[in-house]
Parts: sequence; structure tokens; C-alpha cells
Amino acid sequence: MTSPMTSPPAPRSWLDLPPDHPFGITHLPYGVFSTAGSSPRVGVRIGDQVLDVSEVARIGRDTVGVGDGPDLTAAWERPSLNAFLDLGHEDWAVARAWLVEILTDDVHEAGVKPHLVPVEDVTLHLPIAVADYVDFYASEHHATNVGRIFRPDSEPLTPNWKHLPIGYHGRAGTVVVSGTDVVRPQGQRKAATDPAPSFGPSRKLDIEAELGFVVGGGTALGEPVAVALAAERHLFGVVLLNDWSARDIQAWEYVPLGPFLGKSFGTSVSAWVTPMAALAAARVPLPTQDPQPLPYLNGAPDAVFGLDLHLEVEWNGTVVSRPEYRDMYWSPAQMLAHLTVNGASIRSGDLFGSGTISGAAKDTRGSFLELSWNGTEPVALGDGAERTFLEDGDTVVLRATAAGAGGTRIGLGEVSGRIVPAREA
Amino acid sequence: MTSPMTSPPAPRSWLDLPPDHPFGITHLPYGVFSTAGSSPRVGVRIGDQVLDVSEVARIGRDTVGVGDGPDLTAAWERPSLNAFLDLGHEDWAVARAWLVEILTDDVHEAGVKPHLVPVEDVTLHLPIAVADYVDFYASEHHATNVGRIFRPDSEPLTPNWKHLPIGYHGRAGTVVVSGTDVVRPQGQRKAATDPAPSFGPSRKLDIEAELGFVVGGGTALGEPVAVALAAERHLFGVVLLNDWSARDIQAWEYVPLGPFLGKSFGTSVSAWVTPMAALAAARVPLPTQDPQPLPYLNGAPDAVFGLDLHLEVEWNGTVVSRPEYRDMYWSPAQMLAHLTVNGASIRSGDLFGSGTISGAAKDTRGSFLELSWNGTEPVALGDGAERTFLEDGDTVVLRATAAGAGGTRIGLGEVSGRIVPAREA
Repeated sequence: MTSPMTSPPAPRSWLDLPPDHPFGITHLPYGVFSTAGSSPRVGVRIGDQVLDVSEVARIGRDTVGVGDGPDLTAAWERPSLNAFLDLGHEDWAVARAWLVEILTDDVHEAGVKPHLVPVEDVTLHLPIAVADYVDFYASEHHATNVGRIFRPDSEPLTPNWKHLPIGYHGRAGTVVVSGTDVVRPQGQRKAATDPAPSFGPSRKLDIEAELGFVVGGGTALGEPVAVALAAERHLFGVVLLNDWSARDIQAWEYVPLGPFLGKSFGTSVSAWVTPMAALAAARVPLPTQDPQPLPYLNGAPDAVFGLDLHLEVEWNGTVVSRPEYRDMYWSPAQMLAHLTVNGASIRSGDLFGSGTISGAAKDTRGSFLELSWNGTEPVALGDGAERTFLEDGDTVVLRATAAGAGGTRIGLGEVSGRIVPAREA
Repeated sequence: MTSPMTSPPAPRSWLDLPPDHPFGITHLPYGVFSTAGSSPRVGVRIGDQVLDVSEVARIGRDTVGVGDGPDLTAAWERPSLNAFLDLGHEDWAVARAWLVEILTDDVHEAGVKPHLVPVEDVTLHLPIAVADYVDFYASEHHATNVGRIFRPDSEPLTPNWKHLPIGYHGRAGTVVVSGTDVVRPQGQRKAATDPAPSFGPSRKLDIEAELGFVVGGGTALGEPVAVALAAERHLFGVVLLNDWSARDIQAWEYVPLGPFLGKSFGTSVSAWVTPMAALAAARVPLPTQDPQPLPYLNGAPDAVFGLDLHLEVEWNGTVVSRPEYRDMYWSPAQMLAHLTVNGASIRSGDLFGSGTISGAAKDTRGSFLELSWNGTEPVALGDGAERTFLEDGDTVVLRATAAGAGGTRIGLGEVSGRIVPAREA
């Protein structure tokens, strides 16, 4: 299904990038950038440069044939992708085809080149104004590990886990772009043996390596999104997402209404949104779902699919885990169909996370809670250093690669964050 | 503390309203309205009319002395209160004092009168663009009742309940204004005796009678809001809030990450936001908190207070419950301090619900789950009708009154909603 042998060769850009460049012509992720002299607006990454797409589209309306199409300049000269997301899936395809055309046909080189800015000269911003943020829990291995650690006296998977993609709402206002420092949260912690809760900085600060799905195209209240149409119409693209988690705060607060302050202090996403169209060659069948889900969650393989993304979790420069997204139990289309089956509406700019990506092998676990088994098995970093949870000054970077079109490989934008000490009370 | 005997008399408006009018001069709630010929903008309710405040402020900048103050016209000529909320608490006070002045001093009558529109001639809209929505669980009686019903084999209150105001994030995009129909949600339900979940319309559709707090004035990520300042600086006002709940969907989905689809299909709020300034006379001490909360939740009585609001729950025309807000265990300032103690930032337009308002007596319970004890004790409506949960076509209206300044009573804007049948699958 993913063999590059059968797909047509990738087009060649006049930028003459090496075929293994993570931001080659088959990728073209969207972000929001500014320069010293300009305000934030949409840009597209190509090679080591950022294309100022609203400017090019402004010129292009007269000269390169998008005059009859959507008003991309208006959508792109904004400080978030939301207006572009609002145009809908047909216009996303028009825009992508036009970008490929102007970056591959030599006739456009002279006109486009002045609008390329070296990536080191730009500031990257949060790419979307997050409307609602939902986090799922779609890895069977992660849910099993967490169940064993947090609820050792119960079955690790709750009875509902294989019937529906469990999810909950998170805090949209604290989603931040890669590179933003994370202040160690304070809060209430209480170990089982403590007589009462105490207050202070989290002692079990953790990550969750996730994929985030960016939603475009709103719906009306009361109208579910069918699983057959969810990916095609409403999944615009993906970001890497680090759902920073304070495990001690979470463990004390989360019964009965779920995680709250253990998660809401910050969620980091990559600056670049990789379009779903760039991941067509990375689609793979889901793992077998047993029992078969209820009909509203079932769909054909072109609608309900997995993704073959290879992640890396780097902790202070050492890669400590390599999660595989293909291990995820629930597909993004099933998550979106479930999220809306009760009639909940969606908006452009909605973001949902996959949940921590963990595989069966220890070195594919996507959280330090799992890698250190709740602090009992230290993780070796370079130079003899060891860790269980995050210390002040630590930096975590998530990266991912996937098959692109025509036998290429694409590399998603990384998401990084550094822990800074808790504020003095 | 609330005796009207000691407070100064209420000013008298040239509108000459009866002293017991729910929207008298001591109330002045804000909303967003439109007329046949105008787009949505901020209005203030006075008597049975809506004052077109951005228009009056535009004139007033030259004639009635707000020329040196905030640009209220710019803040009020918007389709939500968010820009006004962004001005901050000092400007909210300036605006309120100015409104009282122009509605009480006869010199302004001729200039203001042309900008009053009868409330029956306007359409009311959602008053805020909801940023993040959080729902708390601050009634001890409600939490105890729900614990008994959902977890009969455990202690009804979880061990954390008296140490922190439990809350969770809800769906901001499905908050709707009073009068919006509610489509019965579909989803997965599974009774303990069912071998597997089934799919269909909720059979246990319920309400939760709550107060919603509207937040103004944003903060930076990493900076908690101190409990001493939370109410004064960041609580702009209150709405009545109906957190519609599908109990069968909720019971199956909510372990371990909390309520999701059982709540996210719709949350109704009143069209009028009552300023906290209008509720000064309704402040009362909290019930005794035992154990004493951790220091970050403790504050002086002028910061950490309860509210003496009397609610009515009307079901198809029959009042079935009269919850008392003064029974709530946690104060709104404690909720906001807790919400931000981990460094989570807030934004103007954030909304948080108190959680269901239930008292010790059966006729003060704020949900039908509790009133019918999970369907086992039918509730009598008029004309011999009985109900356990909501049927299609049912209408629920929440109302509330409170002490206003100078011995007046104010009546909050009602929140109503009617159940329409689930869509055909």
C-alpha cells in the first residue's frame, strides 16, 4: 500500500533541493512567520526557506492563473491559518497544486524567488488560533501502561476503551508554538501514603509524544461528521504535539472528572502544519480492531486509515524513544466522527491530539512515565546522566519522518521545549 | 452583611421603573443584540428596553464627559463583549458609573431616549465569544448525590473533593445563547447489565442548573491569578448556565478521562451578563470549609465569598426545583485561583461554570438525575404529567433573583431551551 515503486516520481523544483530534504517539494507545510520588518502572516516552507505566499498569490492573481480561484491572498495575509482552513478542502487542493506549479515550473522562478526568506531570518508563530482542543487516548499500549501504573488493582484497559476513542477537552488558550519555554507548574500533589495534599512545584513533570490533527471547515450544531467524509473534508494537516503532563498533580486531581491542571499549563505544537495531502503515501491500514466498532466508526480503508510516521523523542540531546504512529489503535477519522456523533459542531482551528504514541517495545514508549515506569527505572542520557522525570533546564525535542510522494521522505517540523523553574510563590 | 437597611438608597432612573423591576437601574446587564436594520453589537438592558450603548457612547464622547475615558464605542460596537472585557476592571467601573449617570440624570434623557429599543424588537445573540470553557463541581450536595448514583460502592465524595475545586474543560464551540433548540444527542450507551454498548439517541437527557462566570482581562502564561485579586480583577459578571447532560452517554464514556460527548453537544447561557458589580449586595460568607484549604485558596471575605442567588428550575411551565446558590462550597475566586495556579493563562471571554447547584433538600436539586434519583422517582409536572428525564418537545427555563443595591431585587436574564428530536442516522 505504501510502496514508492508504484507511485509517480516526485516533481522537481527549480530550487534544486536534494531528494532527501525534509522540506522538499512533496512536503510544503504551512506556518505563520514574521520578519523584522513585517507582521505575522502565512508562509510555506520549502527547503531552508519560507515562501511569503500571500505576496506571491497577490502577484499570481494576475500572472500565474489563480485569478479564477479562491482569494488566497486574503486567506494568507492573516496571523493564523484559520481563514485558509475556512476555505475548505477543495480550495486547499487548489492552493497546493498552485504552489507545486510555481515551485517546479522554471517560468515562475524569477517571479517567486524574491519572496523566499531564509528560515533563520524569520520568527515562527503559533500556526493556528486554536478553537477547541481535544486530546484522545488512542494508543492501546499507552493506555495499558498508564492503567497498570495508575490503577494497579484494576484491569489496565477500561471496559469502554475498545468501543470508542476516549477523549477529553483540553485548554485551547495554553497551546504554544515550538520553542516556547515551559514553566514548571505548581499545584497539589498527594501520594497514597501522604496524610494530606501538599502544594509546590510538580515533581513528576513529563511529556507525551503525540500527533495533533488540525481541523478545517466548520459544521453546524447538531450535524455529525460521517466517518467516511471526516478525513477528506475536515482533516487539513498534522503537527507534532507535546502534551506536557504533571503526573503528580494529575494523579491527585483526575477522579472523577478527568485531567485538568496536570495538563493545562502548556501544550506545545510544531510551527509547521504538514498537509494531509503530503502524507498520502504514509497511509497504512489500522491494526485489527476487535471487537468491531459500532457502525458510525466503521469506514472503508480510504477513509479509516493509520499513518506510518516514525517519531523520535530527544531528551537533552539523546534519543530515548522511537515511537511508531502505525501502532495507534484508532484512526483520526474515527476520532473526528466520534467527537461529533452527538451533534457537537467543529470550527476551523480545532485541534485534536492522538494521545501518547507508545508501542509494545520499551524503546517505543512516548512518555517518561512509561519509559521510567513511574520513576522506578531511570532512563540513561548521554555522559552518564540519568533521568526519571524532567529537571529544570531540560529540553525535549520531538521529530518525525514519513514517506512522501514519489519515493521521497518528508520530515515534519520539530516541536521543542525547555523546562524553566517554577515561579516563587 | 447583606442587609439592605445599611446600604444607600438606589438611584432613581428617569425611565421611572417600578422598584421591583428585575432590570432596574441597579442591574444594567450587558448583552449583544441586533435589530432588523443593524448588525450585532453590545447593548445594556434597562427595564423592558435595550440601550444601544455604542451609539450613546459615540455621542457621549463629546457631550457627556467620557471623552477622557476609555473608548467605549470601539469596545461596544462589536458582536461580542470580548473587547469590552479586554479593557479591564477599572474601565468596567467607569462604564457602569457613566451608564448610571446617563440613565438617572434628567439632563441626559432627551439624548439617550432615541437609543432605547424595545426588547421585543431585538434579536439577542451569544454575549461572549467563548475562549475556554471550564466546568466546576462546587456543590457538595450535588457531588454527593452523583457519587451515590454513579458509584454506589464507593464513598460518594472522592478524597480530593474538599481539598480543591474539581473542574474540567468543556467544549467552547457549543456554548449557545438562551432560546437555541437542543438536538437530542446520539451516542453509545451501555447499562451495567448490557453485554455490549448500543448506539442511539440518549435516553437520559438531563439539565444542570449552574451559574456561569465570565472572565475578563487576560494574563500571561506562567502567571497564576492570586485568590485575593481574582474576583476584583477578573470576574466581570455572571450568566445563568444550563449544562445539558446525556447521563447514559456520560456514564459509559467518562472513565478514566472525564465527561466528553455526554456534555459537549450544547451548553446554554442567558443572553444577559449580570455584572459582578450588580451583585455586591448579594455577597454572603461561604459555608464553613473543613479542612481548611491550602493557602493559595484562602482569602479574606471580600475576596472569597459566596452569592445569595435564588434559582428556579421550570420544566414545561412547572417549577420543579428552587436551588440556592449560597449552598455552594467553593467560591468563584477559589475556582479561578485554582484554574490558574499551575500557570495556565486566562483570556477575556473565558467562561467557567459553577457546577450543578444543589442543596440538601430534594426540592433544591439542580439536575433531573438527582430530582428523579436516576429515573426511579418520577417528578410531577402540571396536569398530572410525570417525568424522569427530558422528552422531545420539553422546555426548561432557569431563572434567578438576588439582592441588588439599595434594597432592590434584581432578576437575572433567563436561560431557556427546548429539546428537539435526534436526527435520523
